[in-house]
Amino acid sequence: MIFSDFKLEGNLPIYIQIKDYLSSLINKGLLPNGSKLPSTRELSKILDVSRNSVIAAYDELKADGFLYSVNGKGTFVSSEKLITSSDWNIDWINLENEFSRTANELDIVKNEIPWSSDLISFKSISPDGDLFDMDEFKKSFMSRISVESHKLLNYGYAQGYKPLIDFLGDYMKKKGSFSKSKTTLVTNGFTEAFDLILSSFTKPGDMILCENPTHNTSIKIMRAHGINIQGIDIGKDGLDFDMLENILEKHGNSIKFAYLTPSYHNPTGSVMPPESRLKFYNLMKKYSIPIIEDGFNEELLYSSSHIFPLSSFDTSGNGVIYIGSFSKILFPGMRIGWIYADKKIINRLISVKRCRNIHTSFLDQGVLFDYLNSGKFEKYIKKIRKVYGEKFSVARKCVEKYIDNEYIWGDGGLHIFIKLKGIDARELLDRCYNKKVIFMPGDIFFTDNNGYDTLRLGLSRLSLEDIEKGIKIIGETIDEMNEENK
Amino acid sequence: MIFSDFKLEGNLPIYIQIKDYLSSLINKGLLPNGSKLPSTRELSKILDVSRNSVIAAYDELKADGFLYSVNGKGTFVSSEKLITSSDWNIDWINLENEFSRTANELDIVKNEIPWSSDLISFKSISPDGDLFDMDEFKKSFMSRISVESHKLLNYGYAQGYKPLIDFLGDYMKKKGSFSKSKTTLVTNGFTEAFDLILSSFTKPGDMILCENPTHNTSIKIMRAHGINIQGIDIGKDGLDFDMLENILEKHGNSIKFAYLTPSYHNPTGSVMPPESRLKFYNLMKKYSIPIIEDGFNEELLYSSSHIFPLSSFDTSGNGVIYIGSFSKILFPGMRIGWIYADKKIINRLISVKRCRNIHTSFLDQGVLFDYLNSGKFEKYIKKIRKVYGEKFSVARKCVEKYIDNEYIWGDGGLHIFIKLKGIDARELLDRCYNKKVIFMPGDIFFTDNNGYDTLRLGLSRLSLEDIEKGIKIIGETIDEMNEENK
Repeated sequence: MIFSDFKLEGNLPIYIQIKDYLSSLINKGLLPNGSKLPSTRELSKILDVSRNSVIAAYDELKADGFLYSVNGKGTFVSSEKLITSSDWNIDWINLENEFSRTANELDIVKNEIPWSSDLISFKSISPDGDLFDMDEFKKSFMSRISVESHKLLNYGYAQGYKPLIDFLGDYMKKKGSFSKSKTTLVTNGFTEAFDLILSSFTKPGDMILCENPTHNTSIKIMRAHGINIQGIDIGKDGLDFDMLENILEKHGNSIKFAYLTPSYHNPTGSVMPPESRLKFYNLMKKYSIPIIEDGFNEELLYSSSHIFPLSSFDTSGNGVIYIGSFSKILFPGMRIGWIYADKKIINRLISVKRCRNIHTSFLDQGVLFDYLNSGKFEKYIKKIRKVYGEKFSVARKCVEKYIDNEYIWGDGGLHIFIKLKGIDARELLDRCYNKKVIFMPGDIFFTDNNGYDTLRLGLSRLSLEDIEKGIKIIGETIDEMNEENK
Repeated sequence: MIFSDFKLEGNLPIYIQIKDYLSSLINKGLLPNGSKLPSTRELSKILDVSRNSVIAAYDELKADGFLYSVNGKGTFVSSEKLITSSDWNIDWINLENEFSRTANELDIVKNEIPWSSDLISFKSISPDGDLFDMDEFKKSFMSRISVESHKLLNYGYAQGYKPLIDFLGDYMKKKGSFSKSKTTLVTNGFTEAFDLILSSFTKPGDMILCENPTHNTSIKIMRAHGINIQGIDIGKDGLDFDMLENILEKHGNSIKFAYLTPSYHNPTGSVMPPESRLKFYNLMKKYSIPIIEDGFNEELLYSSSHIFPLSSFDTSGNGVIYIGSFSKILFPGMRIGWIYADKKIINRLISVKRCRNIHTSFLDQGVLFDYLNSGKFEKYIKKIRKVYGEKFSVARKCVEKYIDNEYIWGDGGLHIFIKLKGIDARELLDRCYNKKVIFMPGDIFFTDNNGYDTLRLGLSRLSLEDIEKGIKIIGETIDEMNEENK
């Protein structure tokens, strides 16, 4: 098509006409730098000239430096010396909007200490991949592909892969949360689930109630959406209900959502007791503030201790939107989470999801469904509960032994949260980094710029030896700082 | 944990005390309907009572209808008769924001004619899954899993899987678009790519220039973001540059982006000639309007005809954001696309992506990389170019033969777009539906409510026989309508 306007004219030798024609295409930018030309045989056919003329034209252009050949690969355009026109230079940062600015500012990955293999890093709470059962995973892939074949690789439905939706419905039933008027939307992990809800139901300036501290990613997403965040303190003994009731009296009618992480809360690791869950649910119901319940790490708890999510109080209501995710403990690289909520909500969210990314990978949904449905997940969860449980209890003992603390939060999970006695955790981090130990300073989890003397230790990817070694170093560093401050 | 506050008190028999305690938990909702109780042995341990007392308590509660047993599964709570409290009923639709409302209103899937197997459907332009080479796909999965193991299943980077990023960089080089100052972000298909860019760089009310007609999903996303869409007509001979220059003179300085689909444009199937591409690029540069180039279906064209994307003019500038996607022709169920743009842009988009869904599935990226890198894609593309090329030329001949048309747009691709002579395409659709033939009415692709007498025929999933049969029926129905209108 690009060579379709070539015409032989006048008395100039054909190879010169070809050369001039190609030169003009290169000059105009229609044959860009680095682009591959047809072979001499192909071009002679396209232009309807002899192959020898094309060879001669190519040779001339090579001599002029506008073409070069790579053995066995072909002939390419080299127009770098032509690029003299003033470059188009847009000041992109200046065009950025508030959403992007906030998402960038609060992106902790961008401000992280670079990882190196000699560090003991307590930063991560992502699962230990060595615990994944890869053979069973491969079997699930093969089994699902043999059932569905190319259907898993073509367009699917925004709501998700039907067998997975049904499985998650049953799964919510086991959590005591089944409701005839609710259904499931499969999402790209918790993050997308939370973002979709805010994208669909909030406006900048809306107020959301949440625990203080809370999951830093949730804070980031809320801030990016321009949400006015109202934190309720979590103390040593759990959520401060007095503070909550005061806030409700003051702002009750203008609060859009309550966002809560009742199980192995991030970062504190606290588990909200059943009575507090019910009390919280009833308070929100009284003020008609819908609850977004984050099922974070609930799987580490579930069936071992019989505490049910808040959504289990809502089986005949529509006030709780539950967000679940396996990716905190299983295959986070696949990014599968879900929302379980009133069908009217899901119906609206489906269109918003379709507007954002059509649907979540059907391949991943299919393979994960097979893995879950075959009972492999139950075996896996028993194994990891034991492994992570041991890490937590070792870590807790080490913290008690080595770290001069105000108190230690939490009942278990993939991390442990510590309040120090007035020690600046960021200064502590700088000092520990010199000793090859890093952790997450706690202030990023606070909604009100507090928590300068708190820190979170992620345990999931460390050996018991490194847990003890690292905590000992942190403790010694705190002792040094205390000594200096005397 | 939930049973930790049980205490034996007074003189009542132990099994009665257990029964009363469990009743109170069920009453409070702390043991929700359908939830599973511990086995009698487990509970006797937890409560520190004899197993016989627990058995007796369970039996009493069963007799009262609050528990039931399922053989081999356990004992479950049945509290349905307790649910008498007034339900929590939130009016969700009323809480919805403008973004969700628009995404729902413009969601064509929700207003679609239900599919049935006896229909000849020209609606879809998704690829024919029977053409996917499943054996090679499985090999790519196995090969990538053996290289990366559980790393593909754990958290990855927002920008994407490094080998895929590098592959796509080389791929853009082959398109003549390589720039030292540009890089790649992997996205969940075109839809996420476009949404991310608008989410980061636009505000409601911003003006975007695009072809009229254009891709209806793009119109939906722009409208959801509150964009003021300024269409430039595509006539039989391509983009109306006179109209474009008029608009630029009037609004040039207040236009935020130009959005363009130069190859096998959706819905018209036109391919913008190289000279028009350069002219368009230079015009946008003159007015400093950055271009979002949609590489839609370019793969069907690439290397067979040497037309380079607009981004190939921009190798020393930063004015073109290129969006690529394999999912129009290959494995759309995996949702993999990419953005190739200035590193400063990508750097900002990475944080926005991380705020939306952390990253695109690393499993899918890894498998797709292996498939692309092993040369299987090149073989596949040769095969499908032939298959889809034949479908297009058959369809074109059939349209010329059977359909009384004003003109037929397009040069190829997965679809063909037709302008009728004043026939209402929606009425035509209703009539054809009765004859078991459906297609996409063209008006959904227009930015200005025009196109009532246009339609798009998607060809990718139909046999040659059905293409002819269906087009013949459409043509006959048009003749009937013409007859009636005489």
